[in-house]
Amino acid sequence: MTSISPGPDALTPTQRTTLHRFRERGHYDRALINSILDEAILCHVGFAADQGALVTPMAFTRIDDALYLHGASGNRTLRAVAAGAEVCVTVTLVDGLVLARSAFHHSVRFRSVMLFGRAVRVDDDGEKLRASLSLLDHLVPGRSADARPPSPTELRATLMVRVPIDEASAKVRGGGPTEEPEDLTLPVWSGVIPLATVAEPAVPAEDLVAGTPQPSYVEHYPDRRRPPD
Amino acid sequence: MTSISPGPDALTPTQRTTLHRFRERGHYDRALINSILDEAILCHVGFAADQGALVTPMAFTRIDDALYLHGASGNRTLRAVAAGAEVCVTVTLVDGLVLARSAFHHSVRFRSVMLFGRAVRVDDDGEKLRASLSLLDHLVPGRSADARPPSPTELRATLMVRVPIDEASAKVRGGGPTEEPEDLTLPVWSGVIPLATVAEPAVPAEDLVAGTPQPSYVEHYPDRRRPPD
Repeated sequence: MTSISPGPDALTPTQRTTLHRFRERGHYDRALINSILDEAILCHVGFAADQGALVTPMAFTRIDDALYLHGASGNRTLRAVAAGAEVCVTVTLVDGLVLARSAFHHSVRFRSVMLFGRAVRVDDDGEKLRASLSLLDHLVPGRSADARPPSPTELRATLMVRVPIDEASAKVRGGGPTEEPEDLTLPVWSGVIPLATVAEPAVPAEDLVAGTPQPSYVEHYPDRRRPPD
Repeated sequence: MTSISPGPDALTPTQRTTLHRFRERGHYDRALINSILDEAILCHVGFAADQGALVTPMAFTRIDDALYLHGASGNRTLRAVAAGAEVCVTVTLVDGLVLARSAFHHSVRFRSVMLFGRAVRVDDDGEKLRASLSLLDHLVPGRSADARPPSPTELRATLMVRVPIDEASAKVRGGGPTEEPEDLTLPVWSGVIPLATVAEPAVPAEDLVAGTPQPSYVEHYPDRRRPPD
């Protein structure tokens, strides 16, 4: 695991991204932050609306040092975000369950990223198209080579925003259970149940053009599991 | 799938929980809301902090019509939540990827819940203990029968809050791809890649008391996948 000390390509911690508890779990390395963002399917986008916080699950993608969100132009969260609301984008991968002998020390293995910032609305057609295709490949690597690209009308119907990945931190909880010394003699099973997100056999649409083959990126959709330490 | 029309045990939609787009995907049935909450491992808790929204992944559990969050007494998010901040708790299950012939119509199959409200700090030892054990069984059904229960000191070190499940909605995106009529002749594969969260072989701690058996709830940890419609 990457060390907490800033490396050559590390973000600068801010008040919002500095961990106050379990500091050893905090990381600012771009490579680690990017790997978590790239593995996640959805993010949770939060902003302070008039009536309190609103947290919305959204698809997203990353291109270099920016995160892109998109949706229909009528999407309330995206409109607020595009209008310059301060956002918190959180991405969480659940890697497993940590069972300790004591109820108190049960835990979840996870990798998460919290990203803070203000979004910029993307109006440039070229950037919008590039981000649209990147969104596809984020969901299904390789898909953009086959899908019909968005038409100018579809691009216009899409609200796209870019959030710079400048103020962000990753948090990683790996390893096994913590135990109280006096619990070590208890004959209670403890350990880790690793969890993985796996693809099940794909279900083709019923109206496929006859003879359309199932692409290899569908047949071999990659499973997601925590990489070895 | 449950209909959008309020049933006998449906929550009353409010301004915050009324869907403005894809209304047919909105549901207010307690049974559906509960099933999504019970299947999820983590939730994302948002509240409006001084510097903007903060979205934190957290373990949780449900008992009847209340959701419980817990953490260390020093946890910043929980302290703000316990102090009465208006929260938005969002839970999202990713069920699959929907590949349309067009980039524009790609989508994610998901089930989500958004819950709004103010938390109440739980100080009653009995309720705190009950919720602690429920948190265990939410992660690993059956675990509370084996784990050492929290001691009075551990309970005191735990900040527990209860959020009433009153103002909430579920959103469900099932089914297959939407296509533009003119795309139907394109020889592009379309369909669904279902995703499931599955347990991999458990890894016992190295310091187990000799002869401690692996419990059946670990051996047969339930996979999570979208139930048939």
